Amino acid sequence: MQTAVATAKVWIGGKWCESDAEGVFEPENPATGEKLGREFPVSRWSDCDRALSAAVEAAHALEKTPPEKIAVFLEAYAKELEADAEAIVQAAHEETALPASPRLKDVELPRTTDQLRQAAAAARQGTWRRPVIDQAKGLRSCYAPIGPVVVFGPNNFPFAFNGVSGGDFAAAIAAGNPVIAKAHPLHAYTSQRMAEAAGRALKTAGLPAATVQMIYKLNHENGARLVSDPRIGAVGFTGSKGAGLKLKHAADTAGKPIYLEMSSLNPVLFLPEGLKENAQKWARELADSCTLGSGQFCTRPNLALAIAGDATEAFMQELTAAIASREPHAMLSSTTRDQLHESIEALQQAGATLLTGGKNVPGKGYRYSSTLLRVSGKNFLKAADGLQREAFGNEVMAIVAADEAELLQVLEHLEGQLTGTVYSAASGADDALYGRLAPVLRRKVGRLLNDKMPTGVAVSPAMNHGGPYPATGHPGFTSVGIPTSIVRFTALQSYDNVRPDRLPDFLRG
Amino acid sequence: MQTAVATAKVWIGGKWCESDAEGVFEPENPATGEKLGREFPVSRWSDCDRALSAAVEAAHALEKTPPEKIAVFLEAYAKELEADAEAIVQAAHEETALPASPRLKDVELPRTTDQLRQAAAAARQGTWRRPVIDQAKGLRSCYAPIGPVVVFGPNNFPFAFNGVSGGDFAAAIAAGNPVIAKAHPLHAYTSQRMAEAAGRALKTAGLPAATVQMIYKLNHENGARLVSDPRIGAVGFTGSKGAGLKLKHAADTAGKPIYLEMSSLNPVLFLPEGLKENAQKWARELADSCTLGSGQFCTRPNLALAIAGDATEAFMQELTAAIASREPHAMLSSTTRDQLHESIEALQQAGATLLTGGKNVPGKGYRYSSTLLRVSGKNFLKAADGLQREAFGNEVMAIVAADEAELLQVLEHLEGQLTGTVYSAASGADDALYGRLAPVLRRKVGRLLNDKMPTGVAVSPAMNHGGPYPATGHPGFTSVGIPTSIVRFTALQSYDNVRPDRLPDFLRG
Repeated sequence: MQTAVATAKVWIGGKWCESDAEGVFEPENPATGEKLGREFPVSRWSDCDRALSAAVEAAHALEKTPPEKIAVFLEAYAKELEADAEAIVQAAHEETALPASPRLKDVELPRTTDQLRQAAAAARQGTWRRPVIDQAKGLRSCYAPIGPVVVFGPNNFPFAFNGVSGGDFAAAIAAGNPVIAKAHPLHAYTSQRMAEAAGRALKTAGLPAATVQMIYKLNHENGARLVSDPRIGAVGFTGSKGAGLKLKHAADTAGKPIYLEMSSLNPVLFLPEGLKENAQKWARELADSCTLGSGQFCTRPNLALAIAGDATEAFMQELTAAIASREPHAMLSSTTRDQLHESIEALQQAGATLLTGGKNVPGKGYRYSSTLLRVSGKNFLKAADGLQREAFGNEVMAIVAADEAELLQVLEHLEGQLTGTVYSAASGADDALYGRLAPVLRRKVGRLLNDKMPTGVAVSPAMNHGGPYPATGHPGFTSVGIPTSIVRFTALQSYDNVRPDRLPDFLRG
Repeated sequence: MQTAVATAKVWIGGKWCESDAEGVFEPENPATGEKLGREFPVSRWSDCDRALSAAVEAAHALEKTPPEKIAVFLEAYAKELEADAEAIVQAAHEETALPASPRLKDVELPRTTDQLRQAAAAARQGTWRRPVIDQAKGLRSCYAPIGPVVVFGPNNFPFAFNGVSGGDFAAAIAAGNPVIAKAHPLHAYTSQRMAEAAGRALKTAGLPAATVQMIYKLNHENGARLVSDPRIGAVGFTGSKGAGLKLKHAADTAGKPIYLEMSSLNPVLFLPEGLKENAQKWARELADSCTLGSGQFCTRPNLALAIAGDATEAFMQELTAAIASREPHAMLSSTTRDQLHESIEALQQAGATLLTGGKNVPGKGYRYSSTLLRVSGKNFLKAADGLQREAFGNEVMAIVAADEAELLQVLEHLEGQLTGTVYSAASGADDALYGRLAPVLRRKVGRLLNDKMPTGVAVSPAMNHGGPYPATGHPGFTSVGIPTSIVRFTALQSYDNVRPDRLPDFLRG
């Protein structure tokens, strides 16, 4: 017997309304494979259309709103999330199978509220506006809000990158833009619960009701239509390369700025002198990093690079053992697991050898065995495209180059990445080699690391969570780090000979 | 009898070499319609391919070059241009029909050398790098060169926007990127002469020979291939919307940042109280501005907006007389003139009425009569797309709205623009109306002006020569104004836990 479940409402124009739905979906618990007993709508275009019109009104109202109110909203929202933390963490745990503690409660939620508060401080101080005054020429310039921002959140961070609470959201709001959030369907209820908290905070701060709006799911055609609508200012997207490139094409064609974080293998180089001392230690660090959270991080290391030799063979043995010993956890969904498996199959077909893992784990939850692949530098160079297919999950592929020259060639053939890391001897014995390899790696990555795994992404003004295409859509921007991330959602504006009483106050004088 | 003329060489890899040409073209003097007796090549792909490979080598060498050398090059180049000023001005005058004095010699060349010197100062000081140091987290970030930049110069500024000497060139070089210049064929010899000056300056500074390279002409397919080649970092383009959008599509698809300045009508609003006092004065200012240099400026006012009334009718009479009295000068080419005529015909078909002008001027040189069109706000709103067709040249269209509400609607329907201007009563009698109109105009334009025409574009750190699509490809960037324009040709880079001796010196400590 089927229980009647009310379909969740979409949040448009400050109200929770019936969606003009073309269908529904029911999230499940990926740790058990069981439905969670909730039903969410797939919106038709009319939902988007209503949200867009309300967002334009909100954008105009926000232009006249003191930044202080925006800061109050962001801070009140952080507080509301903390007040509802238990329920939100429980919801996210059920929908994602990510551990409630420490991950969701003690790491991701505090990171999210910290981000909102840093955005509040930036809104209050106006640091992102970068005012320039040229009194001699009567010219002034600053950055200004760009207009309604559509934010697509990914599946892997239900809080910190959520369209209705994450980094893109905080950055867009801090600059005075309304946000239309496209929640990720895999954590729809978590998103709903967070949106409710945002709604309470909007009331506390007295901001326009349509400053934040949210829908759950759209077909591809409506997604493309949304990011190219004349009413929007810009788009923030975190997710897969396939989905990202479709949206990029639509936004580019309409002349709308779109900021995408799409894919990255995050190569880690292990230099030979250091490997002699640290084979075991480094193998364990790598195994920990690439299996943490089932490897479902944008910055998990998917590629290990080394030069052939005894130390490298010792490292590979340690790594094989370490990866094999890492107990797999439930992944975000059956799709996530199936795509990981497909990618691992494809990497083998492209020339990589399976050393451990490579199969679904039977039993409850969508688990996949932690996997290690290996390929020679020579074979990598024969199929560099196919062997750079992203395998999102607890997998790593080691590329063992015959010598330095081959390793350099491998680096030259890498696509753009979020991060690139070099482990080397503490003694300095690898320094000359570092000097030859690092410049090549530097050009390919947004963040260059030494002697630590890239998985953590600190919320710091000096962070770059970005990188050359196809890691992102533009190498000049970061999606993490305030105030830099805010500038994405702004337009440059000059005032030329404008009468003093008509200038924004921070451009007077 | 035909005289044998040697085809000019292309500048690739530090040498003037024979082009692998698929054809040739012969520039003419647009003031006389006579050929200038010079022949230039249309490059095949192999010219681009050689230039790209040389540019990559130069980019790597530049990474290790002290900024001081780059500054020395930019300053030496400015000096070389000044030393060869007479010949360069003469060449540009012959190829463009722009007045040698004051325009080319006294305005555009000094502006160009000033721009090169400002870029030198920015290179030396590293202002564009925006270093951020987070010692607590061991994180550092800065902007870094993006790689070889392809610069497409427009037809209308043979010096200040030339691919081998203008603002995009100076900005790209200041950030340490090599430039592949695509000279505009209409001033090919001017570009050759400037490139020779650049070559001497490269030797003086001791920069890599392929830091600057130049070709003259490409077919569309090779242009698209050039901007999407994996070896380039970014593209700067100034020119027509048609050509710009084709390149944008190619670059976007390849994930290459492209900065375009494409088209703008530069609307000027004349508010009613002010019009009562200033009908004649403002009409003459507008007529001067839109006919200056045959209206061949990106920021010439192509649209005048007013509310119906007696003062507006008086203004229109003054404007008609003023425009009719402005003597037309030779345009840049027969194509420029023919396209202006086509646009003016199309605007009439879309609903505008011709008040004066609208025809070719017989005799020597490609001249077109200064033209004024008029349309009601109501009719503009019926065909807002067709009536926003760019008419590049000495033309202006007045939109007379029935009332404030209709004027607001017209503003809402405007595409993105480089500039928007409001003339209003000095007494403050228009201030309330300004307060209602200006916010709508502000969202549509990169630079908002009061009480002066938009034609001049000062080289100032507070300038925004940019604006919302389709005026440019991205509202966050300017092509004029240092150091802001430099940031276009950079990538954001973080260093995470990188050992101190491996950091760029400005990120240490």
